[in-house]
Amino acid sequence: MKYEFSQRVKSLKPSAIREILKNSSTPGMIPLSAGNPAPDAFPYEDIRKISASLLADTPIEALQYSVTEGYAPLREHLKKYMSEKHGVGKESDEVLITSGAQQVMDLLTKTLLNEGDTVLCEAPSFIGSLNTFRSYQAKLRGIPMEADGISIEGLENALDTEKNIKYLYTIPNFQNPSGITMSLPKRKKVYELCRDHNVLVLEDNPYGDLRFAGEDLPSIKSFDQEGVVMYAGSFSKVVSPGMRVGYAIGPREIIQKMVVCKQGEDVHSNIWAQIVCHRFMTECGYEAHLQRLRDIYRRKAAVLTAAMKEHFAPLISWNSFEGGLFAWCTLPESIDMLEFIRRGTEQKACAVPGTAFLTDESEACQSFRINFSTPTDEQLREGIEILGKLAREMA
Amino acid sequence: MKYEFSQRVKSLKPSAIREILKNSSTPGMIPLSAGNPAPDAFPYEDIRKISASLLADTPIEALQYSVTEGYAPLREHLKKYMSEKHGVGKESDEVLITSGAQQVMDLLTKTLLNEGDTVLCEAPSFIGSLNTFRSYQAKLRGIPMEADGISIEGLENALDTEKNIKYLYTIPNFQNPSGITMSLPKRKKVYELCRDHNVLVLEDNPYGDLRFAGEDLPSIKSFDQEGVVMYAGSFSKVVSPGMRVGYAIGPREIIQKMVVCKQGEDVHSNIWAQIVCHRFMTECGYEAHLQRLRDIYRRKAAVLTAAMKEHFAPLISWNSFEGGLFAWCTLPESIDMLEFIRRGTEQKACAVPGTAFLTDESEACQSFRINFSTPTDEQLREGIEILGKLAREMA
Repeated sequence: MKYEFSQRVKSLKPSAIREILKNSSTPGMIPLSAGNPAPDAFPYEDIRKISASLLADTPIEALQYSVTEGYAPLREHLKKYMSEKHGVGKESDEVLITSGAQQVMDLLTKTLLNEGDTVLCEAPSFIGSLNTFRSYQAKLRGIPMEADGISIEGLENALDTEKNIKYLYTIPNFQNPSGITMSLPKRKKVYELCRDHNVLVLEDNPYGDLRFAGEDLPSIKSFDQEGVVMYAGSFSKVVSPGMRVGYAIGPREIIQKMVVCKQGEDVHSNIWAQIVCHRFMTECGYEAHLQRLRDIYRRKAAVLTAAMKEHFAPLISWNSFEGGLFAWCTLPESIDMLEFIRRGTEQKACAVPGTAFLTDESEACQSFRINFSTPTDEQLREGIEILGKLAREMA
Repeated sequence: MKYEFSQRVKSLKPSAIREILKNSSTPGMIPLSAGNPAPDAFPYEDIRKISASLLADTPIEALQYSVTEGYAPLREHLKKYMSEKHGVGKESDEVLITSGAQQVMDLLTKTLLNEGDTVLCEAPSFIGSLNTFRSYQAKLRGIPMEADGISIEGLENALDTEKNIKYLYTIPNFQNPSGITMSLPKRKKVYELCRDHNVLVLEDNPYGDLRFAGEDLPSIKSFDQEGVVMYAGSFSKVVSPGMRVGYAIGPREIIQKMVVCKQGEDVHSNIWAQIVCHRFMTECGYEAHLQRLRDIYRRKAAVLTAAMKEHFAPLISWNSFEGGLFAWCTLPESIDMLEFIRRGTEQKACAVPGTAFLTDESEACQSFRINFSTPTDEQLREGIEILGKLAREMA
């Protein structure tokens, strides 16, 4: 039988990068290309206890069909917690529990975007979200990143010239892949500009709780008085990614449409995981847990930075970062970046080429992304040494 | 701020039926409108033991990111089990684990359907799937059901006259809502007709293991030599719906595209639930468990049938059914069906109006659906008595 695929699927091009990365899971490979939380970051003792009590005391609740909007006590707790701690969400907002934050990107796009409509994004940006937008045939317009976040001039220009812009996608804290954090003045300016152009902001904040240096900055959603911002939160980096629990906090009118779309996608998210997240947040010393995570990642970031100082400087430069899971490194013009990644992978040190994070993979890019949460300390030191040596050979 | 929604979301019309059913969860309501497995059908002792051992022995595996295709041991086991037991799946097929079987409907539609393309379905059919197809702006063409399954004449006519048909959606066993099982000759004919017209068959089989009378019939997928059938399976009715684990078995070329779409929707399905399903299938006497479920539903179906014989006959008729969770009942022409459902709900006996399951809700329909898995035996008897008395009043 001959199959005819939909236009949206046909438009998803195979990636040149996938070819480079397809060996990234071979044995012995140092996983600098990953994005997994560190194994010691999982609160599995608490999860085991909660799960045991849940399956002993109220098993039917944890196993029966549930509602699409999400487990009501978790939604209520998040509404209160995010409002009190982060100023996120107000009376006209609603909370929707999703199957990971990726589903927030998917449902918002499904709700708002017609084929060919424009999504503004940071350049570079998170490849997973860009691919979700592409699957709805979005036109992606990348706006350059600066040391303090998205270029305001670039954003103004895009808002003035692009047609049918549905939203701006931004990761303001420890952005994936650049590690950059948007400054407070820029957060305010982004909010005002988008509001004035009647363009929604999709604020993706998976790493906000993983700040190990500097001061917390208010989220863009915390300025939101007019229903401009859809906030995406996630338990993947702070509890468990395998549970697939994320959430959206945004204007009720939009959330209600996203609920209808979610009903058609997966009816509701795994209810055991939602209850575990709720009880973990409310019964297990959540703030102390976040502090422990910050300590873990502060230490691992220090291991990486020391190795980069020893083996990368001055040939390879990197953005400073105060949290998150990634470092963004840049090669001198004399080195072919894709060839560098290819040879690094052959030598078992696998980083991600920066072109993977661009709206157009064929654009020039000298940067690559290093993850420091997945590798062990030893692997980090070894991987950076391999890549540093390789760069000196290729320079 | 003013929001502009996508065409696909704007085209999802509010349902007249939702208004009737919105009180279905009020306290004291007899849940004849539900579709939940019976509480005593959950193997929660086994799930508790598996989960405890899993979170004690290999917690990181159960909590870390996993692959989009699904937990490899579960995929391999399903491939072997479904092939050996049901003749489902061969070398050119692949298995994809999904977040409930609903996601199979979603991913296949996303992979194949352009706006305005046609989906053939049984009339009536499962409202959840119809709404998924609608969310991709499918043109739905309903084909009448007969006592032994879909009308072959109707199918031939649709295949000959409709344009851009992407697939036929069918639930061959104990169909939701009609309870009808497709005969063996019709299964063969459906396969041949679709193959000859280069139209895929989406075979949805959530209830196949719940046969409590009669003989098992081979699935349409078991005839598939040419890559014509995408099979959707589910653990929702046989293990737990709250876990959200389903699966697709179908042509590798299509499954690979569905994997790309799933990556953008939710990255992967909850991994704890996938491992629990695998271990439950392989370690806990799965066939004996299925037998126990059939015993539960055979008994509950007998309670319902006895009540219908006492209170419905001869005024209200019903389709005979040999498995599944639903009975399909039909009122005489003298009774206004929607008014009957409305008044039944007022009297705390809430059934689903048959129009909910049609491609066009405004079509004439004298039928309604009764679920017998969710209510207790006592509730079943009481609910049927209320509806029987009401029908006699209204006749």
